[in-house]
Amino acid sequence: MSDKQKKPQKPKARLPRGFVDRNAADIRAVNEMTAKIREVYERYGFDPVETPLIEFTDALGKFLPDSDRPNEGVFSLQDDDDQWMSLRYDLTAPLARHVAENFNEIQLPYRTYRNGWVFRNEKPGPGRFRQFMQFDADTVGAPGVQADAEMCMMMADTLEALGIKRGDYVIRVNNRKVLDGVLEAIGLGGDDNAARRLNVLRAIDKLDKFGPEGVKLLLGPGRKDESGDFTKGAGLDDSQIEKVLFFVGIKDYATSAADLAALVAGTSKGGEGVEELNLIGALVTGAGYNDGRVKIDPSVVRGLEYYTGPVYEAELTFDVTNEKGEKVVFGSVGGGGRYDGLVSRFMGQPVPATGFSIGVSRLMTALKNLGKLGQDEVLAPVLVTVMDGDAEAMGRYQRFTQQLRAEGIRAEMYQGNWKKFGNQLKYADRRGAPVAIIQGGDERAEGVVQIKDLIEGKRLAGEIEDNASWREARVAQIVVPEAELVEKVKEILAAQAEDRRRAN
Amino acid sequence: MSDKQKKPQKPKARLPRGFVDRNAADIRAVNEMTAKIREVYERYGFDPVETPLIEFTDALGKFLPDSDRPNEGVFSLQDDDDQWMSLRYDLTAPLARHVAENFNEIQLPYRTYRNGWVFRNEKPGPGRFRQFMQFDADTVGAPGVQADAEMCMMMADTLEALGIKRGDYVIRVNNRKVLDGVLEAIGLGGDDNAARRLNVLRAIDKLDKFGPEGVKLLLGPGRKDESGDFTKGAGLDDSQIEKVLFFVGIKDYATSAADLAALVAGTSKGGEGVEELNLIGALVTGAGYNDGRVKIDPSVVRGLEYYTGPVYEAELTFDVTNEKGEKVVFGSVGGGGRYDGLVSRFMGQPVPATGFSIGVSRLMTALKNLGKLGQDEVLAPVLVTVMDGDAEAMGRYQRFTQQLRAEGIRAEMYQGNWKKFGNQLKYADRRGAPVAIIQGGDERAEGVVQIKDLIEGKRLAGEIEDNASWREARVAQIVVPEAELVEKVKEILAAQAEDRRRAN
Repeated sequence: MSDKQKKPQKPKARLPRGFVDRNAADIRAVNEMTAKIREVYERYGFDPVETPLIEFTDALGKFLPDSDRPNEGVFSLQDDDDQWMSLRYDLTAPLARHVAENFNEIQLPYRTYRNGWVFRNEKPGPGRFRQFMQFDADTVGAPGVQADAEMCMMMADTLEALGIKRGDYVIRVNNRKVLDGVLEAIGLGGDDNAARRLNVLRAIDKLDKFGPEGVKLLLGPGRKDESGDFTKGAGLDDSQIEKVLFFVGIKDYATSAADLAALVAGTSKGGEGVEELNLIGALVTGAGYNDGRVKIDPSVVRGLEYYTGPVYEAELTFDVTNEKGEKVVFGSVGGGGRYDGLVSRFMGQPVPATGFSIGVSRLMTALKNLGKLGQDEVLAPVLVTVMDGDAEAMGRYQRFTQQLRAEGIRAEMYQGNWKKFGNQLKYADRRGAPVAIIQGGDERAEGVVQIKDLIEGKRLAGEIEDNASWREARVAQIVVPEAELVEKVKEILAAQAEDRRRAN
Repeated sequence: MSDKQKKPQKPKARLPRGFVDRNAADIRAVNEMTAKIREVYERYGFDPVETPLIEFTDALGKFLPDSDRPNEGVFSLQDDDDQWMSLRYDLTAPLARHVAENFNEIQLPYRTYRNGWVFRNEKPGPGRFRQFMQFDADTVGAPGVQADAEMCMMMADTLEALGIKRGDYVIRVNNRKVLDGVLEAIGLGGDDNAARRLNVLRAIDKLDKFGPEGVKLLLGPGRKDESGDFTKGAGLDDSQIEKVLFFVGIKDYATSAADLAALVAGTSKGGEGVEELNLIGALVTGAGYNDGRVKIDPSVVRGLEYYTGPVYEAELTFDVTNEKGEKVVFGSVGGGGRYDGLVSRFMGQPVPATGFSIGVSRLMTALKNLGKLGQDEVLAPVLVTVMDGDAEAMGRYQRFTQQLRAEGIRAEMYQGNWKKFGNQLKYADRRGAPVAIIQGGDERAEGVVQIKDLIEGKRLAGEIEDNASWREARVAQIVVPEAELVEKVKEILAAQAEDRRRAN
């Protein structure tokens, strides 16, 4: 028995929850997407800058580990010298560290973009991972909201570059200062009311879900849902509620701007916020993006706790069918805003900045829904089969393969156990190989090769149900001298491409 | 005083040692490189597959954390359920986990590639980071060394695709089984001699550094270096040493193959190893890669502890000047070999596999040395300057910018504090902007814009020593109607491109 215990246990091949492998289709789709996004950002004059995946925890700032639960929210670990380090949870906090660290060398305004993995030590769920990819762009050292307006237009151009039609998305803009002004105007200003302001924000955030009537209850006494669960309200009175609902209910900003200005008049920053929204509106209009692409919309609340001025969100407005079979608006695929405090927390001076982040996986899902990704499917390789295992024969198969590759044709020699030829054909089938090359002893003696057109073969054979039927299927094949191999394969691939073109 | 203590301390903007930010030039260079590498691997019939950056520590296998030092070698942390997780330290161990986990769905042979960050919790040094990038390709489920031969040819093609000339590199191949055979033949077989075998491997590994005489001492009684430090030797006798040195000293494998076979005759796997090397040689020759691209070379030892059959290494053979001003051979930029045990440690069955890894940063350094990267430098954006801050003026500047972008011209409106116009010109200069657009009140009234050719201006002005001289420099500029802005900018950019072309 002690002998049994000593035997090394086989480790289990599994991933921690919330982490997943990526397959070829997803990797190619993300590469295709990020190349297009990058092209737009470059055109806007942004340059790439990247930071490592690990930072000192205090430099990230948002989540600080305590001694009991060092991993609350972030993945944290201690370095040799006992300092806490964390995996980055977004791309903004590391950028702020980067700018502060290199402030003397950096030429402001500093316009950069980056994409990469971020980590959240949270409970994973459907479509919710502990490692996911973001794509960010930021302008640091830009005090005016013209920088925010530019971000909104860049988001719009990005979505269109990815194939999302005008009208199928909207970039919605709001301003934290205006909301703060409204809250101050109804008597919720000052540090003492921070908790109540947060309750109001959370109530507004439910506008999409519960509608104005539901939000009214959440702003007031509270709301009971269908199951009977009660959510305590923010405890506002009717007049307060009315003002908040007026603000978040604004549909046409231009006609409501004056009323809004009057509502926040006399508050510390409300007027400034309205002016900022007005300027963003003017810039967007000046560049022609007021045709539904970029819209000022005070119901945007996401991120208002975090940002200090304008906030903006990219929303896809077309319907998709969710897991429950319901039609729903696809919703947000990215957003951002002004974060004037993030760099300056390291410095003695203010460093205004604005930027946004795209959730790459979520946007990829949307694009797949629209059929906008993976159109140029990568062709599987031509398979050079192996009939004999002696060095001379293998050398020939290898040479055929290299000759095809040298002409830019995707090709591989069969690398499994070649003695079971059926496995080679099964492999070619499951791999989707367009062509198979076969040379047995007789053909070798004659200096010829068989070329099988597997697509044509498949079509002739109809549905291939098992290996046996595959092998018996009548496949299109020709026999050519070795010297003509590459040319003939090229011809067959060209004919297949023409077939695909006609089928579309 | 207690008040002072309560003040939140500003966090310091710094990175943990061994981690670095990446600038635009490096990111673009790596993207350029990886795109070319990917193109070769795809042509060889490999598909991308990626794994997350975090794995269960026991699945990675190589380094196991102990309770005192959980981070020895790897970065490790505990999950909520107390299981140890680690940041991956290479891309091979996670691939093995991936294959074992999905074994029933995967079609063997499984030919995949991936690039990504890996982490080593080790002491960083010059050019030695705790986060770095690898680019791997692997064939899993390939029992024959034809798969290893293919890897060697693919490495050669990859280096050439990156612009490294034939003759400036060599792929060197060895086989663990042959070395084991040699060691067995001199009486160092069996478990009892594991420590001595390791000493022999370490001695051979110093061949480049100390030459045959030095290695002879290390294999025998030991070696004293210039400083008087003594390294204990492996304690072999002269006849044993002679056989080891014969093996690692083989320069022309073809002429020595028979002697080698005789030396390892009767050992458990030595003969098999020689046959494998012979087959690799035949395949490489069959495909024409025996012209110095791929070479069988028994002095390759790196990784022999880890691999189970063939090992191969890509070496750049041209000289570079090191930090000390000495000319040295650039050396290894990647390598790999057969690791038949790595997947099977999860499974009840053997899963033969082979693959190799390129050190991306090191290869990038080599390519920069050769002037093979960053040839297509990205042009800095056209700068639309800001002369007036009212909404109408800003709207125009924004419109000009968008018009340029819509025509594919990299452009940006100045986003810093526009009131200091000198800063805008300084920004344009430091950014390397090719053209600046200026519209003041008078020009606005007339509906015209000034376009400054900053490259021409620079040339006319000679060296720009400070902001003042820049502003006074005679720059090439024209005034055109707003409607002609885009066309004129295009013309100037085209003229600048022509200048660059002629200068090269």
